[in-house]
Amino acid sequence: MRKPEAKLDFAAIRAAHRRIRPHIHRTPVLTSSRLNDASGACLFFKCENFQKGGAFKARGATNAVFSLDDTAARRGVATHSSGNHGSAVARAAKLRGIPAHIVMPSNSAKVKVRAVESYGAQIVFCEPTQAAREAACAEVIAKTGAILIHSFENEHVMAGQGTAAVEVLEDVSDLDVVICPVGGGGLLCGTAVAAKSIRPEIKVVAAEPVNADDAAQSFHAGRLIHSKKKFTIADGLRTNVGAPNFAIIQQYVNDIVTVSEEAIVRAMRTIWETMKIIVELSAAVSYAAIIENKIDLVGKRAGIILTGGNVDLDALPWTQ
Amino acid sequence: MRKPEAKLDFAAIRAAHRRIRPHIHRTPVLTSSRLNDASGACLFFKCENFQKGGAFKARGATNAVFSLDDTAARRGVATHSSGNHGSAVARAAKLRGIPAHIVMPSNSAKVKVRAVESYGAQIVFCEPTQAAREAACAEVIAKTGAILIHSFENEHVMAGQGTAAVEVLEDVSDLDVVICPVGGGGLLCGTAVAAKSIRPEIKVVAAEPVNADDAAQSFHAGRLIHSKKKFTIADGLRTNVGAPNFAIIQQYVNDIVTVSEEAIVRAMRTIWETMKIIVELSAAVSYAAIIENKIDLVGKRAGIILTGGNVDLDALPWTQ
Repeated sequence: MRKPEAKLDFAAIRAAHRRIRPHIHRTPVLTSSRLNDASGACLFFKCENFQKGGAFKARGATNAVFSLDDTAARRGVATHSSGNHGSAVARAAKLRGIPAHIVMPSNSAKVKVRAVESYGAQIVFCEPTQAAREAACAEVIAKTGAILIHSFENEHVMAGQGTAAVEVLEDVSDLDVVICPVGGGGLLCGTAVAAKSIRPEIKVVAAEPVNADDAAQSFHAGRLIHSKKKFTIADGLRTNVGAPNFAIIQQYVNDIVTVSEEAIVRAMRTIWETMKIIVELSAAVSYAAIIENKIDLVGKRAGIILTGGNVDLDALPWTQ
Repeated sequence: MRKPEAKLDFAAIRAAHRRIRPHIHRTPVLTSSRLNDASGACLFFKCENFQKGGAFKARGATNAVFSLDDTAARRGVATHSSGNHGSAVARAAKLRGIPAHIVMPSNSAKVKVRAVESYGAQIVFCEPTQAAREAACAEVIAKTGAILIHSFENEHVMAGQGTAAVEVLEDVSDLDVVICPVGGGGLLCGTAVAAKSIRPEIKVVAAEPVNADDAAQSFHAGRLIHSKKKFTIADGLRTNVGAPNFAIIQQYVNDIVTVSEEAIVRAMRTIWETMKIIVELSAAVSYAAIIENKIDLVGKRAGIILTGGNVDLDALPWTQ
């Protein structure tokens, strides 16, 4: 259904920023002298956990939905997602006043289901496998004519995700590096194209759970590898990187590093305790890379995209 | 040791603001469309959980320590506190380069003890009673000549605490009401004098756990009542209101409302889940008053001081 190549240029990201601005938060950039002292760097945390819906996903989904021409939009939109992208698409569709069909695995967290419902979207449940999700989504599209808004292979989604990096670079001068997690690669592509376009000398580094390290393996091998994954607690990063995303990553990204499960939990807890903000495990992966000294940051200025803050407070990783 | 009357005027708060500005954060004011929808009001949350040391206490302690003349300062400072004020005084003394003696109950949380130690203060442990704390503090002062920095009866402390309200009123136009919790009354006095001086028509409302409602009882009786308290989980608000504080409260405060323990926990959790920020139980008391409809806010613009974010993540109230 998708072409293997996606184009992404900075003009598309600029256009996305103009398009989505009325519908998203310009999230703050926070700093912590304690975390600076601990890392020997100046860290600038872009708080997408404060974004609409609690995650950066609002940016890409909103851009994709509002990029449709009226004829296409009237057909409605569809996607499959167990997480933040599904509710972001549902919210964007509601804002635009068009139908949304969200395919969700039958074992999705109730809070995620309620979020999608609250935006008035149609939910289609399916078996919790990638194949079942894709099949159910294709069926919905065949039946309704809805437009697929893929969570990371869609170039409008990537362009929208890149607007977070634009804001970081507008708010913080002289950044040496920008760090974000990588799952499917939508955020990483947007971030890399935005950051390198605004500041060509900047380094773009992605962090990935070692238990879901297909992007790191692919990056270092120079070809797309879909590895059989072990379980990672960073549930937002279990996806394999997309083929169109990987092409952009190869062109723009400087490095992809991996982190342990233990470091992810420790990073999340440290951010909660020190910065007094709630970030989800997937959002803590960048700081986990700093804890584990995977990125040389001493004396450097680093922008870190904290991707989301949707956490089940009844199931915290340190109370399990 | 303290006179029963404290004077507090807006000039003192303005002076405090100039004095402490290099040493504290100007904390952000956050909003939440969900909490606005839920309350029918426009709520502006002043995030003192992001303040140095994780609580507004840095403001008052820093002002008190930096208000001392050099001769007095050389004698060092002393206080008794099981919570955020102790580490705030320790931090301010370290910034000024003078000794600090902090009397702490022997059952203080380890994390609080470590915070005080990290600023190089001398810790004196005592039995966990108010009388033992005061006696131990008096003894330290007799022995060392240190100056007492009382956590809420000191007018420099009150003036410092009032600077949070100044910032709220600078950042947010047309506020109808400002809400903060009341324990000893230091924050409430500073908030009330600041808010009424800047905007005389504003209402100032305090919220207090019904299990520690001496301030509400006193306010409505028109005389200081030190009631025998039941236990409240809002550990920062277990103190009786001070006599000098009560005099100011009678003059400037519009109402003091009380909230249930259950509402405090629910308010804390709602703020965590919705705003993605970590606030402590004592900080959630103002929003608990909104949950319980104790304050008429429909259609109004309300500033809410979120007082702190120091929480033991291993002992959350909903996992007990």
